[in-house]
Amino acid sequence: MISIQTIQDKAIALKNNRTFELFVVAVIIISALLVGAKTYAIPETLSQMIVWLDVGITFLFLFEIIVRFIAEPNKKRFFLDGWNVFDTLVVVVSLIPIDNSDMALVGRLVRVFRVLRMVSIIPELRTLLNSLIRALPQLGYVVLLMFIIFYIYAAIGATFFADINRELWGDIAIAMLTLFRIMTFEDWTDVMYETMAVYPLSWSFYLSFIFFTAFAFLNMVIGIVVNVLEDEHAKERAEQDEEEGNATLNELRDELAELKTMIADLKAKN
Amino acid sequence: MISIQTIQDKAIALKNNRTFELFVVAVIIISALLVGAKTYAIPETLSQMIVWLDVGITFLFLFEIIVRFIAEPNKKRFFLDGWNVFDTLVVVVSLIPIDNSDMALVGRLVRVFRVLRMVSIIPELRTLLNSLIRALPQLGYVVLLMFIIFYIYAAIGATFFADINRELWGDIAIAMLTLFRIMTFEDWTDVMYETMAVYPLSWSFYLSFIFFTAFAFLNMVIGIVVNVLEDEHAKERAEQDEEEGNATLNELRDELAELKTMIADLKAKN
Amino acid sequence: MISIQTIQDKAIALKNNRTFELFVVAVIIISALLVGAKTYAIPETLSQMIVWLDVGITFLFLFEIIVRFIAEPNKKRFFLDGWNVFDTLVVVVSLIPIDNSDMALVGRLVRVFRVLRMVSIIPELRTLLNSLIRALPQLGYVVLLMFIIFYIYAAIGATFFADINRELWGDIAIAMLTLFRIMTFEDWTDVMYETMAVYPLSWSFYLSFIFFTAFAFLNMVIGIVVNVLEDEHAKERAEQDEEEGNATLNELRDELAELKTMIADLKAKN
Amino acid sequence: MISIQTIQDKAIALKNNRTFELFVVAVIIISALLVGAKTYAIPETLSQMIVWLDVGITFLFLFEIIVRFIAEPNKKRFFLDGWNVFDTLVVVVSLIPIDNSDMALVGRLVRVFRVLRMVSIIPELRTLLNSLIRALPQLGYVVLLMFIIFYIYAAIGATFFADINRELWGDIAIAMLTLFRIMTFEDWTDVMYETMAVYPLSWSFYLSFIFFTAFAFLNMVIGIVVNVLEDEHAKERAEQDEEEGNATLNELRDELAELKTMIADLKAKN
Repeated sequence: MISIQTIQDKAIALKNNRTFELFVVAVIIISALLVGAKTYAIPETLSQMIVWLDVGITFLFLFEIIVRFIAEPNKKRFFLDGWNVFDTLVVVVSLIPIDNSDMALVGRLVRVFRVLRMVSIIPELRTLLNSLIRALPQLGYVVLLMFIIFYIYAAIGATFFADINRELWGDIAIAMLTLFRIMTFEDWTDVMYETMAVYPLSWSFYLSFIFFTAFAFLNMVIGIVVNVLEDEHAKERAEQDEEEGNATLNELRDELAELKTMIADLKAKN
Repeated sequence: MISIQTIQDKAIALKNNRTFELFVVAVIIISALLVGAKTYAIPETLSQMIVWLDVGITFLFLFEIIVRFIAEPNKKRFFLDGWNVFDTLVVVVSLIPIDNSDMALVGRLVRVFRVLRMVSIIPELRTLLNSLIRALPQLGYVVLLMFIIFYIYAAIGATFFADINRELWGDIAIAMLTLFRIMTFEDWTDVMYETMAVYPLSWSFYLSFIFFTAFAFLNMVIGIVVNVLEDEHAKERAEQDEEEGNATLNELRDELAELKTMIADLKAKN
Repeated sequence: MISIQTIQDKAIALKNNRTFELFVVAVIIISALLVGAKTYAIPETLSQMIVWLDVGITFLFLFEIIVRFIAEPNKKRFFLDGWNVFDTLVVVVSLIPIDNSDMALVGRLVRVFRVLRMVSIIPELRTLLNSLIRALPQLGYVVLLMFIIFYIYAAIGATFFADINRELWGDIAIAMLTLFRIMTFEDWTDVMYETMAVYPLSWSFYLSFIFFTAFAFLNMVIGIVVNVLEDEHAKERAEQDEEEGNATLNELRDELAELKTMIADLKAKN
Repeated sequence: MISIQTIQDKAIALKNNRTFELFVVAVIIISALLVGAKTYAIPETLSQMIVWLDVGITFLFLFEIIVRFIAEPNKKRFFLDGWNVFDTLVVVVSLIPIDNSDMALVGRLVRVFRVLRMVSIIPELRTLLNSLIRALPQLGYVVLLMFIIFYIYAAIGATFFADINRELWGDIAIAMLTLFRIMTFEDWTDVMYETMAVYPLSWSFYLSFIFFTAFAFLNMVIGIVVNVLEDEHAKERAEQDEEEGNATLNELRDELAELKTMIADLKAKN
């Protein structure tokens, strides 16, 4: 009888096996290509083949997740890693048989998200995405300020311009979407000229909004640049300090103080 | 009889009360949501409820401002703070009863501005907005230069292109708006092709304008980045200098000079 | 009889007179406002008044330039300053009487350029503009590279797409204008979809062009930022070096060497 | 009989000849102008002249390449330089006689690419382009992440929106082009409003896409800026270290240690 320990050892060996790793990457790429292929009009036979391939990939992913789960010494920690949870979810939803057309869309969507496994399997991409996500909270208050600016302008816009164009200023949610459009400069003058026909001074609404958001956005960007540069600077200084045998000014001062005492002693002796 | 002092003490206690603070924030958020809700088509009963809620919020804000005013030891300083003046104004205008439809719009606008109280109540947002506003004067001369560029191009545009399209180049104010539109690249080629039909060389007008403004804008951005980095740098250096017990090269030199005198003495003695 | 010297002294006194300076600034601002006013439909009487004001301003400017010329001790150096030449030209062209309608436009244009005198009279703006102009040559080779990219893409565009749309790709000059439009993302997809109908792969033409120009532009911006930061850095270091009484590591080493010799002497003596 | 050595020496002399170099630059500029001239409607006689000029230029380029090849001492290294291979290819393809109209376009295209020789002949431009190309691999993983984002959104778009507009979301390739268009903000609201008519929540698809790509792009830009600044910093430090006779803190410490030993000796002696 094979003990649980042996199974775990085999799972670890398989998980760390270079060939197995490359095989999983290949399967992920094939699954990504299948997602793309399905958006083309393809002959029935090929389409049928894709369905079978899809089932195969789902079971391979299931197998790979089980191997990773068994290989993990601490089972609790496995589900603390967001990527593991994500992988498991994608596999589990892929396994649910779906007939209803509404659910079929969800099933297709889950297959699309398999492409994201590319990020979880390539360490560099995982690091990159993590650092992107980690940079977000820094922006917290600027984003909140942006939201308040949007909310106020949307409230003003929905209050005054709703009767001019329901499609653009109908309620506060639509107005915020319209303001986002104005922020991207997409046909914003059409929106402006329309309201200027009724309120000739409404250009000040648009211009002030563009100035505020552009200025807040600029400050956000500059804030990130300065943060990144400072982090690099701090890291560099930490590295310098770590280099062994480096003299500091304070050390030199202490040495000088010692010398002085020695000479004073000498003087006293003479 | 309660003395004035007791009232002030109670006001200070209430103002610093954590629950009261959270309650005020909650009321501000509700008032912001009400502003948004009013932009939707809502049933009469709900609409009536909103009106009552609105009155309640106005009086709560009035109460909160009075508490803050009483809590302030120096009454004169209260109105030196822009945020206090702003809060008071919003509350006072909210209190004015309005029937006339024109004034009703102003009343609605003031309710919208209540959302800005979110900025005044959250210290981090206040700091952020203050720092944004403080960064503005640095831009003074670049903005003036930008304005001169706009003015000159608008004058040229209104002089030459007014007969081509009154809507875009009718007078110098309209022309400046059109130039701002060109600066945001919004359908600027339509404007250009129209005038190129009459003045085939007018593309140089648009291209030179785009180059000048883009270049001035770029310089503005770079100016801010450099300023921010320098401020950070200066702050960092000031911190280093403050750290106690740090030796400087000058100190070491003075120590060495002292040593030299001591040895010279020793030599003279021998 | 008044000597030339006396006239020059008086001119210098007048030129440096604070009231005279403010008066000139006021006249420049009025002349700028006149330029703007003329773009509006104004009643005949006002229009006549503006003509007289305009004549007055021209002669005031002439007077101011003569004062500045006389005040200058070295007459040759006067015309070496680009701003003086510009001011003189604007005044001289303003003086030429113009009847012909074609020349009238030139006359009006010159009056517009008077607004630029605002830049020449405010020292901060002059410094700003000079530093902008000084930054240009740094960009020399990037601009040349950009031009070559534009030229090659325009040649390809004019060769392949000329028969599709003469308006956009008729010859290499028009094609370059179209490419500039694409670079600003202004309705670039309309241009692309039109040629994709004939050459389905022409999207690669547009995408590669956008990538190249965006990348070159980005590099230009980064180049400027780095240059500016380095200049600041160098300036800062120069300032540090200038501070009197600052010890350097080399000085300390020399001091130590001297100390060593003294102690060696002492040792030898004993 | 002239020896091979003599020919090589003559080739080297010719290659390094300043006049010859300027002549080649002039020929390249003329060939670039010819490319531009051909896009205009020109009279038959001029057109014939251009054809002859073109042949002349081709043979001049062939001659120049042969000179460069002979002048190169190590013939193998000649084809290791990408620019040499590029120049040779352009000349060889120019030499192929072409009758067929399809090939004629290729011939014309090759003549356009001759303009790129401008880059290969001006050393500053070559350095600039090389540094641009060298900066690309740094972007590797961000570009891969961007591609994955595009692929996932394109797969979702092609799955859900294909029936709404075949032109924009027909298959995954078309969907990626549409997404690139959305990223450049070019009429992106038209695309959004179209799908919002069917899926009212599809605005979240567009907004999240814009946020993700903008954020990834921003990070890419910041990454480049930080890299460039660090390179400059490292270069500067390397220069400082190279300056001769510069004392370091470690040297001073060693000196002090030596002094101490000397004084200790002195003390022992006394």
